[in-house]
Amino acid sequence: MKTYQECIPCFYKQAGEAAELAGADDDIKEIMINEISKVLPEISLSLSPPEIAQQIHYIVRAVIGKEDPYIEVKRRSNESALKLYPTLKKKVIASGDRLLTAVEIAAAGNVIDYGVKNNLDIRKEIDNILSHGFSFPHSQKKSVFEYEEFKKGLAAAGDILYLADNAGEIVFDKILLEELKGKETVFAVRGKPIINDALVEDALACGIDKVTRVISNGSDAPGTILKDCSSEFRDIYDNAGLIISKGQGNFETLSEEPRPIYFLFKVKCPVIAKDIGSEVGSIVLKKARRG
Amino acid sequence: MKTYQECIPCFYKQAGEAAELAGADDDIKEIMINEISKVLPEISLSLSPPEIAQQIHYIVRAVIGKEDPYIEVKRRSNESALKLYPTLKKKVIASGDRLLTAVEIAAAGNVIDYGVKNNLDIRKEIDNILSHGFSFPHSQKKSVFEYEEFKKGLAAAGDILYLADNAGEIVFDKILLEELKGKETVFAVRGKPIINDALVEDALACGIDKVTRVISNGSDAPGTILKDCSSEFRDIYDNAGLIISKGQGNFETLSEEPRPIYFLFKVKCPVIAKDIGSEVGSIVLKKARRG
Repeated sequence: MKTYQECIPCFYKQAGEAAELAGADDDIKEIMINEISKVLPEISLSLSPPEIAQQIHYIVRAVIGKEDPYIEVKRRSNESALKLYPTLKKKVIASGDRLLTAVEIAAAGNVIDYGVKNNLDIRKEIDNILSHGFSFPHSQKKSVFEYEEFKKGLAAAGDILYLADNAGEIVFDKILLEELKGKETVFAVRGKPIINDALVEDALACGIDKVTRVISNGSDAPGTILKDCSSEFRDIYDNAGLIISKGQGNFETLSEEPRPIYFLFKVKCPVIAKDIGSEVGSIVLKKARRG
Repeated sequence: MKTYQECIPCFYKQAGEAAELAGADDDIKEIMINEISKVLPEISLSLSPPEIAQQIHYIVRAVIGKEDPYIEVKRRSNESALKLYPTLKKKVIASGDRLLTAVEIAAAGNVIDYGVKNNLDIRKEIDNILSHGFSFPHSQKKSVFEYEEFKKGLAAAGDILYLADNAGEIVFDKILLEELKGKETVFAVRGKPIINDALVEDALACGIDKVTRVISNGSDAPGTILKDCSSEFRDIYDNAGLIISKGQGNFETLSEEPRPIYFLFKVKCPVIAKDIGSEVGSIVLKKARRG
Protein backbone atom coordinates (compact mmCIF):
# COMPACT_ATOMS: atom_id res chain seq x y z
CA MET A 1 0.00 0.00 0.00
CA LYS A 2 1.31 3.42 -0.87
CA THR A 3 1.58 6.25 1.62
CA TYR A 4 -1.02 9.02 1.57
CA GLN A 5 -0.62 12.61 2.67
CA GLU A 6 -2.91 11.72 5.59
CA CYS A 7 -0.10 9.48 6.90
CA ILE A 8 2.44 12.31 7.26
CA PRO A 9 1.03 13.74 10.52
CA CYS A 10 1.23 10.22 12.01
CA PHE A 11 4.95 9.95 11.20
CA TYR A 12 5.61 13.17 13.11
CA LYS A 13 3.31 12.07 15.91
CA GLN A 14 5.12 8.75 16.29
CA ALA A 15 8.48 10.51 16.25
CA GLY A 16 7.24 12.93 18.89
CA GLU A 17 6.06 10.06 21.09
CA ALA A 18 9.45 8.37 20.84
CA ALA A 19 11.22 11.63 21.71
CA GLU A 20 8.88 12.17 24.65
CA LEU A 21 9.49 8.65 25.95
CA ALA A 22 13.24 9.21 25.62
CA GLY A 23 12.93 12.37 27.71
CA ALA A 24 14.19 14.61 24.90
CA ASP A 25 14.02 18.37 25.52
CA ASP A 26 12.46 20.95 23.18
CA ASP A 27 15.79 21.66 21.43
CA ILE A 28 16.36 17.99 20.64
CA LYS A 29 12.74 17.68 19.49
CA GLU A 30 13.18 20.65 17.15
CA ILE A 31 16.35 19.13 15.69
CA MET A 32 14.48 15.85 15.21
CA ILE A 33 11.54 17.59 13.45
CA ASN A 34 13.97 19.43 11.16
CA GLU A 35 15.92 16.29 10.28
CA ILE A 36 12.70 14.41 9.46
CA SER A 37 11.45 17.34 7.38
CA LYS A 38 14.73 17.46 5.45
CA VAL A 39 14.54 13.79 4.52
CA LEU A 40 10.82 13.59 3.67
CA PRO A 41 11.08 15.28 0.24
CA GLU A 42 13.68 12.66 -0.73
CA ILE A 43 11.28 9.78 0.02
CA SER A 44 8.58 8.83 -2.48
CA LEU A 45 5.05 8.37 -1.13
CA SER A 46 4.82 5.36 -3.44
CA LEU A 47 6.58 3.48 -0.64
CA SER A 48 4.43 1.88 2.05
CA PRO A 49 3.96 3.71 5.38
CA PRO A 50 6.18 1.22 7.29
CA GLU A 51 8.98 1.71 4.74
CA ILE A 52 8.86 5.46 5.36
CA ALA A 53 8.43 5.01 9.12
CA GLN A 54 11.54 2.81 9.16
CA GLN A 55 13.58 5.62 7.56
CA ILE A 56 12.11 8.20 9.93
CA HIS A 57 12.87 6.13 13.01
CA TYR A 58 16.54 5.86 11.96
CA ILE A 59 16.59 9.65 12.25
CA VAL A 60 14.59 9.64 15.49
CA ARG A 61 16.93 7.19 17.19
CA ALA A 62 20.03 9.00 15.95
CA VAL A 63 18.81 12.40 17.20
CA ILE A 64 17.37 11.31 20.56
CA GLY A 65 20.30 8.94 21.16
CA LYS A 66 18.22 6.01 22.34
CA GLU A 67 18.10 2.70 20.53
CA ASP A 68 14.83 1.52 22.10
CA PRO A 69 12.75 4.34 23.65
CA TYR A 70 9.77 1.99 23.98
CA ILE A 71 11.54 -0.66 26.07
CA GLU A 72 9.67 0.24 29.26
CA VAL A 73 6.33 0.63 27.40
CA LYS A 74 6.81 -2.84 25.95
CA ARG A 75 7.69 -4.33 29.33
CA ARG A 76 4.56 -2.84 30.88
CA SER A 77 2.38 -3.98 27.94
CA ASN A 78 3.63 -7.55 28.31
CA GLU A 79 3.04 -7.47 32.04
CA SER A 80 -0.51 -6.06 31.73
CA ALA A 81 -1.45 -8.53 29.02
CA LEU A 82 -0.09 -11.49 30.97
CA LYS A 83 -2.36 -10.56 33.87
CA LEU A 84 -5.33 -10.80 31.50
CA TYR A 85 -4.26 -14.17 30.13
CA PRO A 86 -6.21 -16.41 32.58
CA THR A 87 -9.46 -14.50 31.95
CA LEU A 88 -8.96 -14.67 28.19
CA LYS A 89 -8.18 -18.38 28.35
CA LYS A 90 -11.34 -19.09 30.37
CA LYS A 91 -13.37 -17.27 27.73
CA VAL A 92 -11.99 -19.57 25.03
CA ILE A 93 -12.59 -22.70 27.09
CA ALA A 94 -16.21 -21.68 27.71
CA SER A 95 -16.85 -20.81 24.08
CA GLY A 96 -19.04 -22.79 21.68
CA ASP A 97 -16.62 -21.87 18.90
CA ARG A 98 -13.18 -21.78 20.47
CA LEU A 99 -11.39 -20.78 17.27
CA LEU A 100 -13.70 -17.82 16.67
CA THR A 101 -13.30 -16.62 20.24
CA ALA A 102 -9.52 -16.99 19.98
CA VAL A 103 -9.49 -15.03 16.69
CA GLU A 104 -11.57 -12.30 18.28
CA ILE A 105 -9.28 -12.13 21.31
CA ALA A 106 -6.20 -11.94 19.06
CA ALA A 107 -7.84 -9.12 17.12
CA ALA A 108 -8.81 -7.33 20.34
CA GLY A 109 -5.16 -7.45 21.41
CA ASN A 110 -4.33 -5.30 18.40
CA VAL A 111 -5.70 -2.33 20.34
CA ILE A 112 -2.27 -2.32 22.00
CA ASP A 113 -0.52 -0.06 19.55
CA TYR A 114 1.45 2.74 21.06
CA GLY A 115 2.57 3.80 17.60
CA VAL A 116 -0.92 4.81 16.52
CA LYS A 117 -2.69 5.86 19.66
CA ASN A 118 -1.20 6.52 23.02
CA ASN A 119 -2.76 5.87 26.41
CA LEU A 120 -5.37 3.42 25.27
CA ASP A 121 -7.21 1.93 28.15
CA ILE A 122 -6.51 -1.67 27.25
CA ARG A 123 -8.15 -3.07 30.31
CA LYS A 124 -11.37 -1.22 29.51
CA GLU A 125 -11.28 -2.35 25.88
CA ILE A 126 -10.78 -5.97 26.84
CA ASP A 127 -13.41 -5.85 29.59
CA ASN A 128 -15.81 -4.45 27.04
CA ILE A 129 -15.04 -7.28 24.63
CA LEU A 130 -15.30 -9.98 27.27
CA SER A 131 -18.58 -8.71 28.70
CA HIS A 132 -20.22 -8.33 25.29
CA GLY A 133 -19.25 -11.79 24.08
CA PHE A 134 -19.38 -11.95 20.31
CA SER A 135 -21.04 -8.60 19.80
CA PHE A 136 -17.81 -7.35 18.27
CA PRO A 137 -17.32 -4.41 15.95
CA HIS A 138 -17.04 -6.88 13.06
CA SER A 139 -20.74 -7.57 13.51
CA GLN A 140 -21.40 -3.95 12.60
CA LYS A 141 -22.17 -2.62 9.18
CA LYS A 142 -19.21 -2.33 6.81
CA SER A 143 -17.25 -5.05 8.58
CA VAL A 144 -14.76 -7.30 6.80
CA PHE A 145 -14.53 -10.61 8.67
CA GLU A 146 -13.90 -13.63 6.46
CA TYR A 147 -14.05 -16.19 9.25
CA GLU A 148 -15.53 -19.15 7.38
CA GLU A 149 -12.94 -18.90 4.61
CA PHE A 150 -10.19 -18.54 7.21
CA LYS A 151 -11.42 -21.65 9.05
CA LYS A 152 -11.37 -23.69 5.84
CA GLY A 153 -7.92 -22.38 4.90
CA LEU A 154 -6.64 -23.29 8.33
CA ALA A 155 -8.02 -26.84 8.13
CA ALA A 156 -6.29 -27.36 4.77
CA ALA A 157 -2.95 -25.80 5.72
CA GLY A 158 -0.16 -27.90 7.18
CA ASP A 159 2.16 -25.24 8.54
CA ILE A 160 1.29 -21.74 9.62
CA LEU A 161 3.38 -18.60 9.88
CA TYR A 162 2.09 -16.08 12.40
CA LEU A 163 3.36 -12.51 11.94
CA ALA A 164 3.38 -10.65 15.25
CA ASP A 165 2.74 -6.97 15.74
CA ASN A 166 3.14 -5.35 19.16
CA ALA A 167 4.47 -6.25 22.58
CA GLY A 168 1.63 -7.11 24.96
CA GLU A 169 -0.59 -7.97 22.00
CA ILE A 170 1.43 -11.16 21.60
CA VAL A 171 -0.17 -12.58 24.77
CA PHE A 172 -3.48 -12.37 22.88
CA ASP A 173 -1.80 -14.05 19.91
CA LYS A 174 -0.69 -16.84 22.25
CA ILE A 175 -4.37 -17.56 22.91
CA LEU A 176 -4.94 -18.08 19.18
CA LEU A 177 -1.69 -20.03 18.72
CA GLU A 178 -2.82 -22.45 21.42
CA GLU A 179 -5.94 -23.20 19.36
CA LEU A 180 -3.77 -24.18 16.39
CA LYS A 181 -2.45 -27.36 18.02
CA GLY A 182 -1.68 -30.09 15.53
CA LYS A 183 -0.36 -27.54 13.08
CA GLU A 184 3.27 -26.64 12.67
CA THR A 185 3.37 -22.96 13.66
CA VAL A 186 6.10 -20.36 13.58
CA PHE A 187 5.77 -17.00 15.35
CA ALA A 188 7.79 -14.21 13.71
CA VAL A 189 8.65 -10.98 15.50
CA ARG A 190 10.71 -7.96 14.41
CA GLY A 191 14.48 -8.24 14.31
CA LYS A 192 15.38 -4.96 16.03
CA PRO A 193 13.58 -2.32 18.11
CA ILE A 194 10.97 -0.30 16.24
CA ILE A 195 8.23 1.58 18.10
CA ASN A 196 6.51 -0.92 20.44
CA ASP A 197 6.70 -3.87 18.05
CA ALA A 198 7.40 -7.23 19.66
CA LEU A 199 10.96 -8.61 19.62
CA VAL A 200 12.22 -12.10 20.51
CA GLU A 201 12.76 -10.95 24.10
CA ASP A 202 9.06 -9.97 24.33
CA ALA A 203 7.97 -13.33 22.94
CA LEU A 204 10.11 -15.04 25.58
CA ALA A 205 8.79 -12.77 28.34
CA CYS A 206 5.25 -13.78 27.33
CA GLY A 207 6.09 -17.49 27.10
CA ILE A 208 5.28 -17.77 23.39
CA ASP A 209 8.26 -20.12 23.05
CA LYS A 210 6.40 -22.61 25.25
CA VAL A 211 3.66 -22.79 22.58
CA THR A 212 5.49 -22.49 19.28
CA ARG A 213 8.78 -21.78 17.57
CA VAL A 214 9.73 -18.09 17.73
CA ILE A 215 11.88 -16.42 15.07
CA SER A 216 13.03 -12.91 14.28
CA ASN A 217 12.25 -11.56 10.82
CA GLY A 218 15.58 -9.76 10.88
CA SER A 219 14.14 -6.34 10.09
CA ASP A 220 13.53 -3.14 12.03
CA ALA A 221 10.57 -1.96 9.97
CA PRO A 222 7.14 -1.57 11.65
CA GLY A 223 5.73 -3.97 9.07
CA THR A 224 7.03 -6.82 6.92
CA ILE A 225 9.27 -5.50 4.13
CA LEU A 226 10.20 -8.79 2.51
CA LYS A 227 13.46 -7.60 0.92
CA ASP A 228 14.53 -6.33 4.32
CA CYS A 229 13.88 -9.67 6.09
CA SER A 230 16.34 -12.47 6.81
CA SER A 231 16.64 -15.46 4.48
CA GLU A 232 15.51 -17.73 7.34
CA PHE A 233 12.29 -15.72 7.58
CA ARG A 234 11.86 -15.52 3.79
CA ASP A 235 12.18 -19.28 3.50
CA ILE A 236 9.45 -19.91 6.06
CA TYR A 237 7.28 -17.16 4.53
CA ASP A 238 7.63 -18.60 1.02
CA ASN A 239 6.64 -22.10 2.11
CA ALA A 240 3.96 -21.57 4.76
CA GLY A 241 0.58 -23.12 3.98
CA LEU A 242 -1.18 -20.14 5.59
CA ILE A 243 0.00 -16.88 7.07
CA ILE A 244 -1.76 -15.01 9.86
CA SER A 245 -0.67 -11.38 9.76
CA LYS A 246 -1.39 -9.12 12.72
CA GLY A 247 -1.69 -5.33 12.65
CA GLN A 248 -1.90 -2.49 10.15
CA GLY A 249 1.86 -2.35 9.52
CA ASN A 250 1.96 -5.92 8.23
CA PHE A 251 -1.16 -5.26 6.13
CA GLU A 252 0.34 -2.10 4.63
CA THR A 253 3.47 -3.98 3.52
CA LEU A 254 1.93 -7.31 2.46
CA SER A 255 -1.58 -6.53 1.18
CA GLU A 256 -0.58 -7.02 -2.49
CA GLU A 257 1.55 -10.13 -1.99
CA PRO A 258 0.51 -13.35 -3.79
CA ARG A 259 0.54 -15.50 -0.65
CA PRO A 260 -2.31 -17.06 1.41
CA ILE A 261 -2.17 -14.32 4.04
CA TYR A 262 -5.05 -13.59 6.41
CA PHE A 263 -4.78 -10.10 7.81
CA LEU A 264 -6.17 -9.70 11.31
CA PHE A 265 -6.24 -6.24 12.84
CA LYS A 266 -8.20 -3.40 14.30
CA VAL A 267 -8.66 -0.53 11.84
CA LYS A 268 -6.98 2.50 13.38
CA CYS A 269 -7.05 5.16 10.69
CA PRO A 270 -9.33 6.46 7.91
CA VAL A 271 -6.74 5.67 5.20
CA ILE A 272 -6.85 1.94 5.96
CA ALA A 273 -10.63 2.03 6.52
CA LYS A 274 -11.07 3.48 3.03
CA ASP A 275 -8.59 1.07 1.45
CA ILE A 276 -10.28 -1.97 2.94
CA GLY A 277 -13.90 -0.80 2.80
CA SER A 278 -14.28 -0.89 6.54
CA GLU A 279 -14.63 1.57 9.40
CA VAL A 280 -12.19 2.95 11.98
CA GLY A 281 -12.49 0.83 15.13
CA SER A 282 -13.76 -2.28 13.35
CA ILE A 283 -11.95 -5.61 13.43
CA VAL A 284 -10.77 -6.99 10.09
CA LEU A 285 -10.09 -10.59 9.11
CA LYS A 286 -9.34 -10.56 5.40
CA LYS A 287 -7.45 -12.70 2.92
CA ALA A 288 -4.81 -11.05 0.71
CA ARG A 289 -6.40 -10.04 -2.60
CA ARG A 290 -3.89 -12.05 -4.63
CA GLY A 291 -3.42 -14.77 -1.98
CA MET B 1 3.24 31.05 22.68
CA LYS B 2 5.98 29.05 21.01
CA THR B 3 5.31 26.08 18.76
CA TYR B 4 5.81 22.57 20.12
CA GLN B 5 6.69 19.42 18.19
CA GLU B 6 3.14 18.26 18.93
CA CYS B 7 1.92 21.09 16.63
CA ILE B 8 3.75 19.77 13.54
CA PRO B 9 1.26 16.98 12.71
CA CYS B 10 -1.54 19.59 12.85
CA PHE B 11 0.20 21.78 10.25
CA TYR B 12 0.33 18.84 7.84
CA LYS B 13 -3.24 17.87 8.70
CA GLN B 14 -4.52 21.38 8.00
CA ALA B 15 -2.58 21.50 4.73
CA GLY B 16 -4.04 18.12 3.75
CA GLU B 17 -7.57 19.35 4.51
CA ALA B 18 -7.06 22.42 2.33
CA ALA B 19 -5.70 20.25 -0.51
CA GLU B 20 -8.62 17.86 -0.14
CA LEU B 21 -11.13 20.72 -0.26
CA ALA B 22 -9.39 22.08 -3.35
CA GLY B 23 -9.76 18.69 -5.03
CA ALA B 24 -5.99 18.22 -5.36
CA ASP B 25 -4.83 14.80 -6.61
CA ASP B 26 -2.19 12.58 -4.94
CA ASP B 27 0.65 14.05 -7.03
CA ILE B 28 -0.22 17.62 -6.05
CA LYS B 29 -0.57 16.53 -2.43
CA GLU B 30 2.88 14.94 -2.52
CA ILE B 31 4.41 18.10 -3.99
CA MET B 32 2.69 20.11 -1.26
CA ILE B 33 4.00 17.80 1.49
CA ASN B 34 7.52 18.06 0.08
CA GLU B 35 7.41 21.84 -0.20
CA ILE B 36 6.17 22.16 3.39
CA SER B 37 8.86 19.73 4.58
CA LYS B 38 11.55 21.72 2.77
CA VAL B 39 10.56 24.97 4.46
CA LEU B 40 9.97 23.64 8.00
CA PRO B 41 13.67 23.36 8.95
CA GLU B 42 14.09 27.03 8.04
CA ILE B 43 11.36 28.11 10.49
CA SER B 44 12.12 28.36 14.21
CA LEU B 45 9.67 26.73 16.59
CA SER B 46 10.12 29.80 18.79
CA LEU B 47 7.48 31.39 16.54
CA SER B 48 3.84 30.94 17.49
CA PRO B 49 1.79 28.22 15.72
CA PRO B 50 -0.23 30.80 13.69
CA GLU B 51 3.01 32.42 12.48
CA ILE B 52 4.19 29.06 11.18
CA ALA B 53 0.73 28.14 9.83
CA GLN B 54 0.68 31.42 7.90
CA GLN B 55 3.96 30.48 6.16
CA ILE B 56 2.72 26.94 5.47
CA HIS B 57 -0.54 28.15 3.96
CA TYR B 58 1.38 30.39 1.53
CA ILE B 59 2.92 27.15 0.22
CA VAL B 60 -0.41 25.28 0.31
CA ARG B 61 -2.19 27.94 -1.74
CA ALA B 62 0.67 28.22 -4.22
CA VAL B 63 0.80 24.45 -4.80
CA ILE B 64 -2.93 23.73 -4.92
CA GLY B 65 -3.57 26.89 -6.94
CA LYS B 66 -6.59 28.04 -4.93
CA GLU B 67 -6.68 31.28 -3.01
CA ASP B 68 -9.56 30.29 -0.73
CA PRO B 69 -10.21 26.52 -0.58
CA TYR B 70 -12.51 27.01 2.41
CA ILE B 71 -14.90 29.45 0.73
CA GLU B 72 -17.73 26.90 0.47
CA VAL B 73 -17.08 25.55 3.99
CA LYS B 74 -17.32 29.10 5.33
CA ARG B 75 -20.52 29.79 3.41
CA ARG B 76 -22.13 26.63 4.81
CA SER B 77 -20.91 27.41 8.34
CA ASN B 78 -22.46 30.87 8.19
CA GLU B 79 -25.71 29.45 6.85
CA SER B 80 -25.95 26.70 9.51
CA ALA B 81 -25.14 29.10 12.31
CA LEU B 82 -27.69 31.68 11.12
CA LYS B 83 -30.39 29.01 11.32
CA LEU B 84 -29.48 28.48 14.97
CA TYR B 85 -29.57 32.19 15.78
CA PRO B 86 -33.26 32.44 16.84
CA THR B 87 -32.89 29.51 19.26
CA LEU B 88 -29.70 30.96 20.72
CA LYS B 89 -31.30 34.38 21.10
CA LYS B 90 -34.32 32.92 22.94
CA LYS B 91 -31.95 31.20 25.34
CA VAL B 92 -30.32 34.54 26.20
CA ILE B 93 -33.67 36.29 26.62
CA ALA B 94 -34.88 33.57 28.98
CA SER B 95 -31.67 33.59 31.03
CA GLY B 96 -31.32 34.90 34.57
CA ASP B 97 -27.81 36.08 33.67
CA ARG B 98 -27.98 37.16 30.04
CA LEU B 99 -24.29 38.08 29.82
CA LEU B 100 -23.16 34.70 31.13
CA THR B 101 -25.41 32.86 28.72
CA ALA B 102 -24.18 35.02 25.84
CA VAL B 103 -20.55 34.34 26.82
CA GLU B 104 -21.26 30.62 26.98
CA ILE B 105 -22.94 30.66 23.58
CA ALA B 106 -20.03 32.61 22.06
CA ALA B 107 -17.65 30.04 23.52
CA ALA B 108 -19.76 27.17 22.23
CA GLY B 109 -19.54 28.67 18.75
CA ASN B 110 -15.81 28.12 18.89
CA VAL B 111 -16.48 24.43 18.21
CA ILE B 112 -16.74 25.54 14.57
CA ASP B 113 -13.12 25.18 13.64
CA TYR B 114 -12.43 23.33 10.47
CA GLY B 115 -8.73 23.99 10.92
CA VAL B 116 -8.46 21.84 14.02
CA LYS B 117 -11.14 19.21 13.65
CA ASN B 118 -13.15 18.36 10.60
CA ASN B 119 -16.75 17.20 10.41
CA LEU B 120 -17.77 18.36 13.83
CA ASP B 121 -21.43 17.92 14.36
CA ILE B 122 -22.12 21.50 15.27
CA ARG B 123 -25.85 21.05 15.57
CA LYS B 124 -25.34 18.20 18.06
CA GLU B 125 -22.83 20.22 20.07
CA ILE B 126 -25.13 23.21 20.26
CA ASP B 127 -28.20 21.09 21.06
CA ASN B 128 -26.22 19.53 23.85
CA ILE B 129 -25.28 22.93 25.21
CA LEU B 130 -28.80 24.32 24.95
CA SER B 131 -30.45 21.32 26.58
CA HIS B 132 -27.99 21.20 29.48
CA GLY B 133 -28.29 24.87 30.29
CA PHE B 134 -25.28 26.05 32.27
CA SER B 135 -23.83 22.62 32.94
CA PHE B 136 -20.95 23.53 30.64
CA PRO B 137 -17.51 21.97 30.52
CA HIS B 138 -16.19 24.99 32.44
CA SER B 139 -18.08 23.70 35.45
CA GLN B 140 -15.83 20.65 35.38
CA LYS B 141 -12.65 20.20 37.29
CA LYS B 142 -9.60 22.01 35.90
CA SER B 143 -11.70 24.67 34.20
CA VAL B 144 -10.48 28.22 33.69
CA PHE B 145 -13.48 30.56 33.56
CA GLU B 146 -12.86 34.03 34.99
CA TYR B 147 -16.39 35.31 34.53
CA GLU B 148 -16.69 37.62 37.54
CA GLU B 149 -13.45 39.42 36.67
CA PHE B 150 -14.56 39.66 33.04
CA LYS B 151 -17.92 41.16 34.09
CA LYS B 152 -16.19 43.81 36.20
CA GLY B 153 -13.71 44.60 33.43
CA LEU B 154 -16.55 44.95 30.97
CA ALA B 155 -18.47 47.34 33.24
CA ALA B 156 -15.40 49.57 33.62
CA ALA B 157 -14.38 49.56 29.95
CA GLY B 158 -15.65 52.19 27.53
CA ASP B 159 -14.82 50.65 24.22
CA ILE B 160 -14.37 47.03 23.36
CA LEU B 161 -12.46 45.31 20.59
CA TYR B 162 -13.77 41.87 19.68
CA LEU B 163 -11.33 39.61 17.79
CA ALA B 164 -13.22 37.12 15.63
CA ASP B 165 -12.11 33.60 14.84
CA ASN B 166 -14.06 31.44 12.37
CA ALA B 167 -16.87 31.83 9.88
CA GLY B 168 -20.16 30.54 11.32
CA GLU B 169 -18.81 31.06 14.83
CA ILE B 170 -19.31 34.79 14.31
CA VAL B 171 -23.10 34.32 14.52
CA PHE B 172 -22.50 33.14 18.08
CA ASP B 173 -20.29 36.17 18.65
CA LYS B 174 -23.15 38.35 17.43
CA ILE B 175 -25.23 37.05 20.35
CA LEU B 176 -22.56 38.29 22.77
CA LEU B 177 -22.03 41.57 20.90
CA GLU B 178 -25.76 42.29 21.24
CA GLU B 179 -25.39 42.05 25.03
CA LEU B 180 -22.70 44.75 24.96
CA LYS B 181 -25.10 47.55 24.02
CA GLY B 182 -24.07 50.93 25.40
CA LYS B 183 -20.43 50.10 24.76
CA GLU B 184 -18.51 51.17 21.71
CA THR B 185 -17.60 47.87 20.05
CA VAL B 186 -15.46 46.97 17.05
CA PHE B 187 -15.46 43.52 15.51
CA ALA B 188 -12.17 42.59 13.79
CA VAL B 189 -11.87 39.78 11.28
CA ARG B 190 -8.91 38.51 9.19
CA GLY B 191 -7.77 40.55 6.22
CA LYS B 192 -7.37 37.74 3.68
CA PRO B 193 -8.45 34.08 3.38
CA ILE B 194 -6.78 31.72 5.86
CA ILE B 195 -8.34 28.33 6.65
CA ASN B 196 -11.98 28.94 7.67
CA ASP B 197 -11.30 32.18 9.55
CA ALA B 198 -13.97 34.85 9.17
CA LEU B 199 -13.44 37.69 6.67
CA VAL B 200 -15.39 40.94 6.23
CA GLU B 201 -17.66 39.19 3.71
CA ASP B 202 -18.57 36.58 6.35
CA ALA B 203 -19.32 39.28 8.91
CA LEU B 204 -21.61 40.96 6.39
CA ALA B 205 -23.28 37.63 5.46
CA CYS B 206 -24.03 37.11 9.16
CA GLY B 207 -25.28 40.67 9.68
CA ILE B 208 -22.61 41.58 12.23
CA ASP B 209 -22.45 45.05 10.63
CA LYS B 210 -26.04 45.64 11.85
CA VAL B 211 -24.79 45.28 15.43
CA THR B 212 -21.34 46.82 15.44
CA ARG B 213 -18.54 48.26 13.37
CA VAL B 214 -16.67 45.58 11.40
CA ILE B 215 -13.01 45.96 10.42
CA SER B 216 -10.35 43.80 8.81
CA ASN B 217 -7.13 43.27 10.75
CA GLY B 218 -5.27 43.33 7.42
CA SER B 219 -3.50 40.01 7.99
CA ASP B 220 -3.82 36.49 6.61
CA ALA B 221 -2.51 34.71 9.70
CA PRO B 222 -4.81 32.33 11.61
CA GLY B 223 -4.25 34.39 14.73
CA THR B 224 -3.38 38.00 15.52
CA ILE B 225 0.25 38.74 14.66
CA LEU B 226 0.37 42.41 15.63
CA LYS B 227 3.28 43.39 13.39
CA ASP B 228 1.40 41.85 10.47
CA CYS B 229 -1.82 43.83 11.13
CA SER B 230 -2.92 47.12 9.58
CA SER B 231 -2.28 50.43 11.34
CA GLU B 232 -6.07 50.96 11.56
CA PHE B 233 -6.37 47.71 13.51
CA ARG B 234 -3.28 48.43 15.62
CA ASP B 235 -4.67 51.80 16.60
CA ILE B 236 -7.96 50.32 17.81
CA TYR B 237 -6.11 47.46 19.53
CA ASP B 238 -3.76 49.83 21.37
CA ASN B 239 -6.61 51.99 22.68
CA ALA B 240 -9.40 49.53 23.46
CA GLY B 241 -10.57 49.44 27.08
CA LEU B 242 -11.09 45.70 26.89
CA ILE B 243 -10.42 43.09 24.23
CA ILE B 244 -12.42 39.91 23.76
CA SER B 245 -10.32 37.41 21.85
CA LYS B 246 -11.92 34.32 20.35
CA GLY B 247 -10.22 31.04 19.50
CA GLN B 248 -6.90 29.30 20.05
CA GLY B 249 -5.12 31.13 17.21
CA ASN B 250 -5.66 34.51 18.81
CA PHE B 251 -4.63 33.10 22.20
CA GLU B 252 -1.45 31.60 20.77
CA THR B 253 -0.41 34.94 19.27
CA LEU B 254 -1.56 37.32 22.03
CA SER B 255 -1.25 35.40 25.31
CA GLU B 256 1.84 37.33 26.42
CA GLU B 257 0.70 40.79 25.32
CA PRO B 258 0.37 43.52 28.03
CA ARG B 259 -3.22 44.43 27.11
CA PRO B 260 -6.57 43.79 28.91
CA ILE B 261 -7.43 40.81 26.72
CA TYR B 262 -9.96 38.18 27.73
CA PHE B 263 -9.42 34.98 25.80
CA LEU B 264 -12.57 32.98 25.14
CA PHE B 265 -12.26 29.59 23.43
CA LYS B 266 -12.78 25.90 23.50
CA VAL B 267 -9.55 23.99 24.22
CA LYS B 268 -8.89 21.81 21.20
CA CYS B 269 -5.44 20.33 21.77
CA PRO B 270 -3.27 18.99 24.62
CA VAL B 271 -0.58 21.64 24.04
CA ILE B 272 -2.98 24.49 24.86
CA ALA B 273 -4.61 22.48 27.66
CA LYS B 274 -1.19 22.07 29.30
CA ASP B 275 -0.22 25.71 28.74
CA ILE B 276 -3.40 27.03 30.30
CA GLY B 277 -3.89 24.38 33.00
CA SER B 278 -7.16 23.20 31.54
CA GLU B 279 -8.47 20.14 29.71
CA VAL B 280 -9.18 19.41 26.05
CA GLY B 281 -12.87 20.11 25.39
CA SER B 282 -13.24 22.63 28.18
CA ILE B 283 -14.27 26.24 27.66
CA VAL B 284 -11.79 28.89 28.72
CA LEU B 285 -12.40 32.52 29.69
CA LYS B 286 -9.09 33.90 30.86
CA LYS B 287 -7.43 37.29 31.14
CA ALA B 288 -4.02 37.80 29.55
CA ARG B 289 -1.31 37.16 32.16
CA ARG B 290 0.24 40.61 31.67
CA GLY B 291 -3.06 42.32 30.82
